[in-house]
Amino acid sequence: MTEPNAPYDPLHCDGSNGTLNNPVSPDGRVDPEERHTIPAREGRAVHLNKGDRLFILNEKGHQVCDFFALLPDTPAEMLSMEHTCTALGHIYVGIGDTLVTNRRRPLIEIVEDTSPGTHDILIACCDQPRYAQLGHEGYHDNCADNFRMALQAIGIEPVHVPSPFNIWMNIPVAEDGAFQWTPPDSKAGDHIALEAKETCICVMSACPQDMTPVNGIDTEPTHLVFWIERTAT
Amino acid sequence: MTEPNAPYDPLHCDGSNGTLNNPVSPDGRVDPEERHTIPAREGRAVHLNKGDRLFILNEKGHQVCDFFALLPDTPAEMLSMEHTCTALGHIYVGIGDTLVTNRRRPLIEIVEDTSPGTHDILIACCDQPRYAQLGHEGYHDNCADNFRMALQAIGIEPVHVPSPFNIWMNIPVAEDGAFQWTPPDSKAGDHIALEAKETCICVMSACPQDMTPVNGIDTEPTHLVFWIERTAT
Repeated sequence: MTEPNAPYDPLHCDGSNGTLNNPVSPDGRVDPEERHTIPAREGRAVHLNKGDRLFILNEKGHQVCDFFALLPDTPAEMLSMEHTCTALGHIYVGIGDTLVTNRRRPLIEIVEDTSPGTHDILIACCDQPRYAQLGHEGYHDNCADNFRMALQAIGIEPVHVPSPFNIWMNIPVAEDGAFQWTPPDSKAGDHIALEAKETCICVMSACPQDMTPVNGIDTEPTHLVFWIERTAT
Repeated sequence: MTEPNAPYDPLHCDGSNGTLNNPVSPDGRVDPEERHTIPAREGRAVHLNKGDRLFILNEKGHQVCDFFALLPDTPAEMLSMEHTCTALGHIYVGIGDTLVTNRRRPLIEIVEDTSPGTHDILIACCDQPRYAQLGHEGYHDNCADNFRMALQAIGIEPVHVPSPFNIWMNIPVAEDGAFQWTPPDSKAGDHIALEAKETCICVMSACPQDMTPVNGIDTEPTHLVFWIERTAT
């Protein structure tokens, strides 16, 4: 495991899990309608053509999905929550909203959502230093490493770990700006569908956070399921 | 000027201004107490030793300062607003709050603030695509390029343009999550003081935004002044 004060390299993982050696395919391409499981605490990358829709299923209902996207030929251009804030003029997102990149390019539109629509775009993904600060000893699976490994598994080297679209993460912000980490209000079987406005690589991490209630109370982090629908030919 | 759809390179500026050729010194070091001006629409980088205090003066009162910081030997480790949100548990910052890096390392503490304390940590810095979307034709000075140029002027190559600490930017977030771009509530002569918890490079950009009211109404973007105080020997 990496020393806590080692020089930071965005490519370098603090540890490892099954994400690194189990890509959905060598380049992240999948067949339409084919269902794929993201095991609990792991991540997967998937290639979407422009117009494809990505469906993410919250089978157990209490599982957060840390979601990232970037351009396959220019991985420095990434989905960016801070640019999305500016584009939308609000800190919550819902059906019909389009998330943009760090070049302000529309990339991901939320087109379906059967949950109450509670998601977060403000909070960094979990990482090894976060678990160390929460008191965990040794390596803890984390969404930052899942992001790195899922991309490395299909041959892409990210230059940075961006802030994620935290699907189903329930971070209510009070009027004074204070917020809490609370359990998802999604239910078993909820899904969200995201449409690619450009060809892109999406990364999903089944968040392994088990030291705050973001993946439910008295529950363990669990798996997610995804598939794509191809609308363009 | 860069084509709007050129592949994105975080090092590449979309245009240029005086920031690139006017560093405070070749390595960003300055003498304590010596006052430096950041001309309107430009940026400057300054080296702080651990324990140094950086004073930023809002001489005219209506000028936003986009603020960034990173580690000199590991420029990929940067002040990160999304990690700061998690560290603080709120979306507003004030005296006594410490901003952290993307490795969750405490880096910048707000130690003085004579303004009402209205600052933003949610919104991306302005960039060429932002001004293009607002309807500007041709190159517009912007904080992303000022960040790049201020660092390049002292020999540092950033791997990413992070989201800034927007000092004096007034973005009130309503209970439903919607926000507005409104003028600063700071007054002429206000200053803020930031203490370096680690040796770091700070970048300040006198935000050139003149197409929304963030730098005031019926005002032009103007200069800022800064100096450092050395508490350690």
